[in-house]
Amino acid sequence: MSAIPEDFIKKTATLSEEVTRPFYNSRKVYVEGSRPDIRVPMREINQEPTAASFGEEENPPIPVYDTSGPFTDSAHKIDLLKGMPDLRSNWIQERNDTEMLTGPSSEYGRGRQTDPSLSHLRFEHIHAPRRAKQDKNVSQMHYARQGIITPEMEFAAIRENGRLQEMRADPRYAKLLRQHPAEAFGAQIPDQITAEFVRSELAVGRAIIPANINHPELEPMIIGRNFRVKINTNIGNSAITSSIEEEVEKMAWSARWGGDTLMDLSTGSNIHETREWILRNAPMPIGTVPIYQALEKVNGKAEELTWEIMRDTLIEQAEQGVDYFTIHAGVLLRYVPLTAERITGIVSRGGSILAKWCLAHHQENFLYTHFEEICDIMKAYDVAFSLGDGLRPGCLADANDAAQFGELETLGELTKIAWEHDVQVMIEGPGHVPMQMIKENMDKELQDCFEAPFYTLGPLVTDISPGYDHFSSGIGAAQIGWYGTAMLCYVTPKEHLGLPNKADVREGIITYKIAAHAADLAKGFPGAQLQDNAMSKARFEFRWGDQFALSLDPERAMEFHDETLPHQAHKVAHFCSMCGPHFCSMKITQDVREYARSQGVSEGDALQKGMQEKAVEFKHQGAEIYKEL
Amino acid sequence: MSAIPEDFIKKTATLSEEVTRPFYNSRKVYVEGSRPDIRVPMREINQEPTAASFGEEENPPIPVYDTSGPFTDSAHKIDLLKGMPDLRSNWIQERNDTEMLTGPSSEYGRGRQTDPSLSHLRFEHIHAPRRAKQDKNVSQMHYARQGIITPEMEFAAIRENGRLQEMRADPRYAKLLRQHPAEAFGAQIPDQITAEFVRSELAVGRAIIPANINHPELEPMIIGRNFRVKINTNIGNSAITSSIEEEVEKMAWSARWGGDTLMDLSTGSNIHETREWILRNAPMPIGTVPIYQALEKVNGKAEELTWEIMRDTLIEQAEQGVDYFTIHAGVLLRYVPLTAERITGIVSRGGSILAKWCLAHHQENFLYTHFEEICDIMKAYDVAFSLGDGLRPGCLADANDAAQFGELETLGELTKIAWEHDVQVMIEGPGHVPMQMIKENMDKELQDCFEAPFYTLGPLVTDISPGYDHFSSGIGAAQIGWYGTAMLCYVTPKEHLGLPNKADVREGIITYKIAAHAADLAKGFPGAQLQDNAMSKARFEFRWGDQFALSLDPERAMEFHDETLPHQAHKVAHFCSMCGPHFCSMKITQDVREYARSQGVSEGDALQKGMQEKAVEFKHQGAEIYKEL
Repeated sequence: MSAIPEDFIKKTATLSEEVTRPFYNSRKVYVEGSRPDIRVPMREINQEPTAASFGEEENPPIPVYDTSGPFTDSAHKIDLLKGMPDLRSNWIQERNDTEMLTGPSSEYGRGRQTDPSLSHLRFEHIHAPRRAKQDKNVSQMHYARQGIITPEMEFAAIRENGRLQEMRADPRYAKLLRQHPAEAFGAQIPDQITAEFVRSELAVGRAIIPANINHPELEPMIIGRNFRVKINTNIGNSAITSSIEEEVEKMAWSARWGGDTLMDLSTGSNIHETREWILRNAPMPIGTVPIYQALEKVNGKAEELTWEIMRDTLIEQAEQGVDYFTIHAGVLLRYVPLTAERITGIVSRGGSILAKWCLAHHQENFLYTHFEEICDIMKAYDVAFSLGDGLRPGCLADANDAAQFGELETLGELTKIAWEHDVQVMIEGPGHVPMQMIKENMDKELQDCFEAPFYTLGPLVTDISPGYDHFSSGIGAAQIGWYGTAMLCYVTPKEHLGLPNKADVREGIITYKIAAHAADLAKGFPGAQLQDNAMSKARFEFRWGDQFALSLDPERAMEFHDETLPHQAHKVAHFCSMCGPHFCSMKITQDVREYARSQGVSEGDALQKGMQEKAVEFKHQGAEIYKEL
Repeated sequence: MSAIPEDFIKKTATLSEEVTRPFYNSRKVYVEGSRPDIRVPMREINQEPTAASFGEEENPPIPVYDTSGPFTDSAHKIDLLKGMPDLRSNWIQERNDTEMLTGPSSEYGRGRQTDPSLSHLRFEHIHAPRRAKQDKNVSQMHYARQGIITPEMEFAAIRENGRLQEMRADPRYAKLLRQHPAEAFGAQIPDQITAEFVRSELAVGRAIIPANINHPELEPMIIGRNFRVKINTNIGNSAITSSIEEEVEKMAWSARWGGDTLMDLSTGSNIHETREWILRNAPMPIGTVPIYQALEKVNGKAEELTWEIMRDTLIEQAEQGVDYFTIHAGVLLRYVPLTAERITGIVSRGGSILAKWCLAHHQENFLYTHFEEICDIMKAYDVAFSLGDGLRPGCLADANDAAQFGELETLGELTKIAWEHDVQVMIEGPGHVPMQMIKENMDKELQDCFEAPFYTLGPLVTDISPGYDHFSSGIGAAQIGWYGTAMLCYVTPKEHLGLPNKADVREGIITYKIAAHAADLAKGFPGAQLQDNAMSKARFEFRWGDQFALSLDPERAMEFHDETLPHQAHKVAHFCSMCGPHFCSMKITQDVREYARSQGVSEGDALQKGMQEKAVEFKHQGAEIYKEL
């Protein structure tokens, strides 16, 4: 990391206005669960009434899933120095299966905490770590298997379900809740997401709630094939650029635009401190690739990595509160030579580190040989596995090859072991795959990994789209999300070219929200079409403000509209900006309806009635026409 | 159109440098056909040699399909006042079935040509129109059915096939031509695209070559399910904004980035003159929606439209050289009431104009009743039908409904009639369709319209993506292209919000090039993976310049790379901008290969050999590990 001035962070206790301002015509609301401290955030979009010319009526508010955290709650005062509100500590304490430590139990963590040269970087209000009591297992999967519904599970269930039951009972929503029949490829999505359903899915391993006991600030969410498709975002400094402040701001920025989880992939200096700042302010689950930091500890020399260094790193990060770890335990010695004839070899950083280590030592991957010890750490803090695909293809030509699929089979083997420990697991997937080969990836994952949630990076469906890889991967993401992938790791326009800035992060997130939402629609997630239907009605009725508010990116929609029609009057004008005031198909359609109404009967009827004769008449006429010619 | 200053166009005989500069490390080459005046343009990308550290070798040039026309040929001097080189007049004359007229045979065309108030707007070198001799049919379909291979067919065949046969015989391309097995959903793509194959596809109506005899500047291309998936772009002024000069520049801009065809959708003033300027400078087929102009002629009052006005407009535009007409002849009286309960009614402008006309007159759509007369005009100039989907859905909720599918069946009926006249036909498709309902559209089109080429607008897979509709439609476009759609009509980021500027046009085109290319890969178009494989090899070998040149948008790729690593040295550096110099997976993979090599045997072997024992050893060890725990 480039030199950080003294007190750099401490001067900026809050976030810039563009990160926190409320969305257009929206307010933060909370849906209460079975106890008052279960308060699930949603964004409620207020709609304007329909104008008289379109049949005057009220339009009900539209509640939408909200990842943006307390940042967008105007009642919450942001203080990055203190961190976010503590949502879960009571829930964790009540379970009475954890204990507070006096300080970090990792050697490295202790060193960082006491190093005076780091005091200007260090988060001020570090809490002592919590750990499972001896022989206790604090994973959500473990509780689920005991038949216990935790507050985390109920929270996640309410979050998925939203206000669906209420809306179903309210006639104002009847038309807006219409939805097409689904094609779900074997997903079994119930009509209503209950806390019991969440529990049962966790118990069989088909879903996870990443929620480290040391990350009490987290708003619980669920990742699984029978829930809304989620998206993961990545941030992280590197040796080349970026500071702590930028990373914290990017995290909040990611939450704002719709990131469901976030991986901190920092590889530069001070990544311990950066991570602390992020975790203490993050409402979403945070993931890491611990081997990146382990590698820093041996100055980048893969062959000097040891299990002891890795173990200390896992504990260090688990005690900070990381919710899921990417662990490349499937990169086995025997798979490495299978990559030698590839066009792009091994493209996963973690995968290549471990391949190098294996070769240097002529030994099996130490993450594989120590896998059960890792499970012991995971269950003491409830860190979920994200089993890394270190041998994923880096180009179309290398897709679905023996190395990739061999590793996937090993990840299945490891999933079984993790589940024997009641440790939560998801499986990482590719990468670069042409469209016709995407489904094979999903099907094989479901079979080999026993339906553990799949978490894919794209896949990109072509290699020739630098600068637009968010989009070429988004095509693959929409498809694999539809086929059953539970979480899509976003890609930004800078993929393969450089490090994303804030604009790139936003672009990547919205692209992936579209892919995930398209998959929810196709799989038939209950209520998924609500926002689309409300948008379409607003569009037909020229309610421009509502169109902006109902957009995935209201600010972009408004900005683009204003480029062509900058005046305020155009936002209430009954024509669209494409065709001008006298030539608009929506307006003509409206005329058609009015014409029908003027005939003295109701719309559909008038048309049906007035035309029936004509249609019959025409059939004869029409037949004649073609006889004539 | 806003006021145009005198001599506005005449001052700007050329295009801005950003429209015409050659692409990075590329040059225009021509592949000659069976006669010297068949010269098919391609872009040839010159590759750098592989560095010694990666096994020093030459990398062969990569030829790619090139839509950019003479604009990017440095040997061609652009003069917009004179128009583009005349490619086809000899071919047309040789057939001896056309005659030159003394002037426009449409009343409106004559009026515009002699109106002195328009002289400052008028293209200077208008040529007299050409028309089929009496009882002659000059459509490419007609020739094809006579067993004639025209120069246009050979040109299109060479364009599809590129230098594939040469490359297959050249060992330098062996690895680069590797391609995965396809899934083509019934498409029958041969291993080599010959002129005879083109002819046979035209003859059965499965493909079209839009090539009006009055557009001799055109570089012929083919649209069909067994060829490369094409993309259409739209430009056009409206009552609100834009000038002739902007539209011509946008046309050339569209050619540059990959637009295969272009529709001029102007609805403002002076659209006759704008169209002339565009046609005389356009290397790609130009399409229009003639009813837009007919409507202008009756001051926007749909009910005042008559067949006579429409007929004159069709002749006016055919004699200017328009290559395909969108004709909404399937909007039948009996389908209109089926739209009354839709959320967004009729969203096609053409569809709503005709619906309004039908209702006002209580008569059947005059495009339907005069369809055979339209065919007579089409075959006299070789204008292809693009049968419009006037009742396409404007939102997910309205997708695949009775109105849409009823119209599609009528389009099939009309296709048969057009084919009786040997007139070329493609069929327009939606629109807004959720992913799980896209395939039904394709399958129904193939069945109802007898495999006439499908030409779809997206479809958008969600309604809530204003500002990003290029992408949400691109997801649907990639899928339907894979399923068999022959041409994808692009969507820009401004869709539903405003009029696209140049940046939006480029963004929309590249997005759609990605979708079309992804479809080509999935369908297994021969050689489609060449550019991807070359990119991947360049990526692995850190040949940054080649990565830029092989990108769909070389300039964007370079610009993004330079944002993170601005120095020239970084373009030859052996690390990527994401991870910095000491931590790069590609570098580590290279180390893995070198390590293997240092063992004294060849890569794959070394690894296999050195590991075999270890692997066996590990199996025992591994078994033990899991026994222990």
